[in-house]
Amino acid sequence: MKDKEGLDEKIGNYIKSQMIKRDAKKVIFGLSGGIDSVTLAYICAKYLKENTIVMVMPDESVTPKSETKDAVQVINNLGLDSINCSIKNIHSTYSKSLPFHNIASGNLRARIRANILYYYANATDSIVVGTSDKSEYLIGYFTKFGDGACDIMPLCSLYKTQVRELAMKIGVPSYIINKKSSANLWIGHKAEAELGLDYDKIDVILKYIERMIPAETCSRKTKIPFEKVWYIYDRNLKNSHKRRLPDMFVG
Amino acid sequence: MKDKEGLDEKIGNYIKSQMIKRDAKKVIFGLSGGIDSVTLAYICAKYLKENTIVMVMPDESVTPKSETKDAVQVINNLGLDSINCSIKNIHSTYSKSLPFHNIASGNLRARIRANILYYYANATDSIVVGTSDKSEYLIGYFTKFGDGACDIMPLCSLYKTQVRELAMKIGVPSYIINKKSSANLWIGHKAEAELGLDYDKIDVILKYIERMIPAETCSRKTKIPFEKVWYIYDRNLKNSHKRRLPDMFVG
Repeated sequence: MKDKEGLDEKIGNYIKSQMIKRDAKKVIFGLSGGIDSVTLAYICAKYLKENTIVMVMPDESVTPKSETKDAVQVINNLGLDSINCSIKNIHSTYSKSLPFHNIASGNLRARIRANILYYYANATDSIVVGTSDKSEYLIGYFTKFGDGACDIMPLCSLYKTQVRELAMKIGVPSYIINKKSSANLWIGHKAEAELGLDYDKIDVILKYIERMIPAETCSRKTKIPFEKVWYIYDRNLKNSHKRRLPDMFVG
Repeated sequence: MKDKEGLDEKIGNYIKSQMIKRDAKKVIFGLSGGIDSVTLAYICAKYLKENTIVMVMPDESVTPKSETKDAVQVINNLGLDSINCSIKNIHSTYSKSLPFHNIASGNLRARIRANILYYYANATDSIVVGTSDKSEYLIGYFTKFGDGACDIMPLCSLYKTQVRELAMKIGVPSYIINKKSSANLWIGHKAEAELGLDYDKIDVILKYIERMIPAETCSRKTKIPFEKVWYIYDRNLKNSHKRRLPDMFVG
């Protein structure tokens, strides 16, 4: 990712070409109001506006009002086709049949959103665009078959810090770029607090992982405490199943 | 798959080894009452009974009562741990927020079941076992991120006709083996009627596809009409996205 010139156009062309290749009429994705989905919305508005549908899917019991407001503001600014669909009642209907479990319940929100995106994708001959960036992808900071459920991943070669650079370049408002990253799967859920490191550091560590340099060396060279470095190495390894197809028995 | 001796044990060992490798306490899967999930239940009951949870998830508005009855009968015969969770209210809560679309609505049922399986998998440190066989897998006769959502696929190297042979060998009741294959995603939904061919013929065609022999040759040699042969070749190709990871933009 050395050549940053025209990166947004390359991503836009990639999305368009995938849409055509797959015989799809539109692309559809969830707009949370966070930097990844907003950056994607800006690119789609510029390069394939007529073929883009964005969905706003709050669970009002956990999604901050400010997030939904940000998402709606982006839609209005860009003039994108959008669908609003609260997942609150759906989530609470599931909950009536399921024993309480905080993590499972949070992941369920991401999975409900995937179901709704695919429902509309089925009904409108669209493909679902994943919004995960490379940092989230490599540490498995996404829900398997939730926000991980998609047909294409246009931001997946950009670290979170690179998405921030790109966002700045293409005019994403600074209040979107600067707010704390959050999956909002439960109240007060903040990515960097959950991960124990900010993305500036995570991305530095991930570059060591990608070069297969041992965690000890990474810690020594970056001066990031070993247990924090190891936590990222370990997440990368433990969540590798999220980046693979189901394992198949070969008889 | 030449050596059929001890095939059930090999599959059982595979499932156990995957469970251990992934640090999981249990395996969990949906038991529809159809031949694939019942065959899997028989294998799990024999080789890892204490670590198996099966889920029965009817939508009473479309699932035939006889299917649920068959599933419950299998559970009682085998003495497996099981959880019942109707998806009827969940599906109808979604439907209140979504425009009607028959296919999308059917696929949604498979996706709701995946959500529930992963909820319990999250809550009990289990892995989700997919029940698809090779025939369904190769023609894409499954819902992407629905019944396709799983961690391991132990039956995926067996054609439907081979699952039938295995089922017979390990004592699956003949009324399960002989009933018409059905996804039951809507009322009267029967696999072979939807596909226009029975699995005996589909499996013959798939063997030609796997050997990359042209459809014309397949039709001529098998005496199956070309348009029916082509339909299977086309499904195999068009649904290949269901057998791949999301496509990633490489910048």
